[in-house]
Amino acid sequence: MYNHSELKEVIDKALVNLSYNTEAARLIDPVKYILSIGGKRLRPVMALMACNLFSDKIDNAILPATGLEIFHNFTLVHDDIMDQASVRRGLPSVHQKWSISQAILSGDVMAFIANECFLQTPENHLLKVFRIFNKAAIEVCIGQQLDMDYEKAKVVTQDEYLRMIELKTAVLMAASVRIGALIGGGNDKDSDLLYEFGRNLGLAFQIQDDLLDIWGDAKVFGKPSGGDIVANKKTFPLIKALETGSGETLKQLKKLFASKDLDPEIKVREVIGLYEQLHIKEITEALANDYITLAFSLLRKVSVDEKRKKELTSVASSLIGRDH
Amino acid sequence: MYNHSELKEVIDKALVNLSYNTEAARLIDPVKYILSIGGKRLRPVMALMACNLFSDKIDNAILPATGLEIFHNFTLVHDDIMDQASVRRGLPSVHQKWSISQAILSGDVMAFIANECFLQTPENHLLKVFRIFNKAAIEVCIGQQLDMDYEKAKVVTQDEYLRMIELKTAVLMAASVRIGALIGGGNDKDSDLLYEFGRNLGLAFQIQDDLLDIWGDAKVFGKPSGGDIVANKKTFPLIKALETGSGETLKQLKKLFASKDLDPEIKVREVIGLYEQLHIKEITEALANDYITLAFSLLRKVSVDEKRKKELTSVASSLIGRDH
Repeated sequence: MYNHSELKEVIDKALVNLSYNTEAARLIDPVKYILSIGGKRLRPVMALMACNLFSDKIDNAILPATGLEIFHNFTLVHDDIMDQASVRRGLPSVHQKWSISQAILSGDVMAFIANECFLQTPENHLLKVFRIFNKAAIEVCIGQQLDMDYEKAKVVTQDEYLRMIELKTAVLMAASVRIGALIGGGNDKDSDLLYEFGRNLGLAFQIQDDLLDIWGDAKVFGKPSGGDIVANKKTFPLIKALETGSGETLKQLKKLFASKDLDPEIKVREVIGLYEQLHIKEITEALANDYITLAFSLLRKVSVDEKRKKELTSVASSLIGRDH
Repeated sequence: MYNHSELKEVIDKALVNLSYNTEAARLIDPVKYILSIGGKRLRPVMALMACNLFSDKIDNAILPATGLEIFHNFTLVHDDIMDQASVRRGLPSVHQKWSISQAILSGDVMAFIANECFLQTPENHLLKVFRIFNKAAIEVCIGQQLDMDYEKAKVVTQDEYLRMIELKTAVLMAASVRIGALIGGGNDKDSDLLYEFGRNLGLAFQIQDDLLDIWGDAKVFGKPSGGDIVANKKTFPLIKALETGSGETLKQLKKLFASKDLDPEIKVREVIGLYEQLHIKEITEALANDYITLAFSLLRKVSVDEKRKKELTSVASSLIGRDH
């Protein structure tokens, strides 16, 4: 059994050792940059952990796991253009450091470098693994589209929001563990259970992320509290507040989000005040908890010894802030 | 044996019949748009022709051929953003009609829709076909990178230029016929010959395109003559003129390309005048001819009856303007 830090090292090493066609150095520099500025390597690590559930040999899963990380970073490079985000992991985003054209093209080539990784999956698993990946990749694009659509929408329902984060965030985590499980020799039933585990964990993770943006400790969380409120982002707390609020509370809430020149600090404080009246923190925590509970119950059903699930359980717990 | 128009119809039909995940309609609308506004379907048609060289049954090649067309259109959508081209096939380009973000994302999903097509290649050919495609896809990205690099470069050599168009244009044509040949049951030797045929044809085609931009008939060619000269594009004629010109001619040429407020018509006329002094048209024609001659000699070596090569010969001739 490999532990978390060993698996992260395996992935970091695989990423560093990737061989590129360097005929056009400018194409690859941003690829190396985005892959080198950190990140938790969550998806590939979870893929390797899922593989390791069933097999002591994880070598066959390393390249597809690396492909998952490269794909994920491809989405970050392109999403940062679409979201006009100039910072990524505390450093300039690719389009900020180079240009939009460069970020488009270097992002594009990452999609095909990810393909190359999947094409090196052992042949007995290749087709199944590639299909799982590619379905997830299309779903991630749909999730990003819904995210952009909802940014402009007047009303977004809770169901619409949950489906969006499922597609944008959860399915790739789900696909990662399914791919790892299959390569490790897990049967279809266990691989499906792990897919659902990853999906529910991904949902919990994203909802937790929304919650931490408002109520998290800025020092621990790495970004100031309330950024989503300032940016009028329709995350779960706001959607829920608009859905459950009424009368004067709803009116005030709408006014706060409609205001254009309100001091950000005041806006955040007043919105949080209204959220507290509506018990939004508790409702959000409860929903995240529901998904976590479901995720862990699915993991328990996977037909391998509980001891082997230690690393996956621990990474899942840390993801949702239950590791301290 | 299928003729050109039958094969184009097969591809047009396959494109219309593609089934999409339409959960986010806005993601797919631009995909349907770019695939519906025409185009010669050159790559998939040539793939089917190459398949048809060896087999009367072309069904197995239809989906991979469709994938080639979707990939090609993906590159058009993203290249148009990078090149700030607002018109494509006489209609607004995708980013012009929607937005840059939409064109990035809808382009991205096309890369994965292309993957989906390749994943439906019959299993005995799938891996080989996918690897040929993916290698070409990475090379096309490199070609686009070199094209962007050379736009800013002071000097571009003939060799650099030829390598750029090889990657940007020729390798995908080459990969298309190789893929078709393999699926049709062609052996490695014939598939390699066809790859080289496609590569040389692609080079001839691009050089011919540069030539037609300057000396072509605007009515036949669909765009006004001299656009590349006005835009200071470093196409083959300019590269060759800078390489062979000297003294007063070179000085005048450089002056014309450095001038910022010269009337475009005058600029085109004067540049063409200098090109004529340097025999640039003849040199360019000769180079295109060399590639064409080589392409046809490679096609002749393919070990099937000459009669079966009729359609491929004819589409190749039409590409380089030898069909009338």
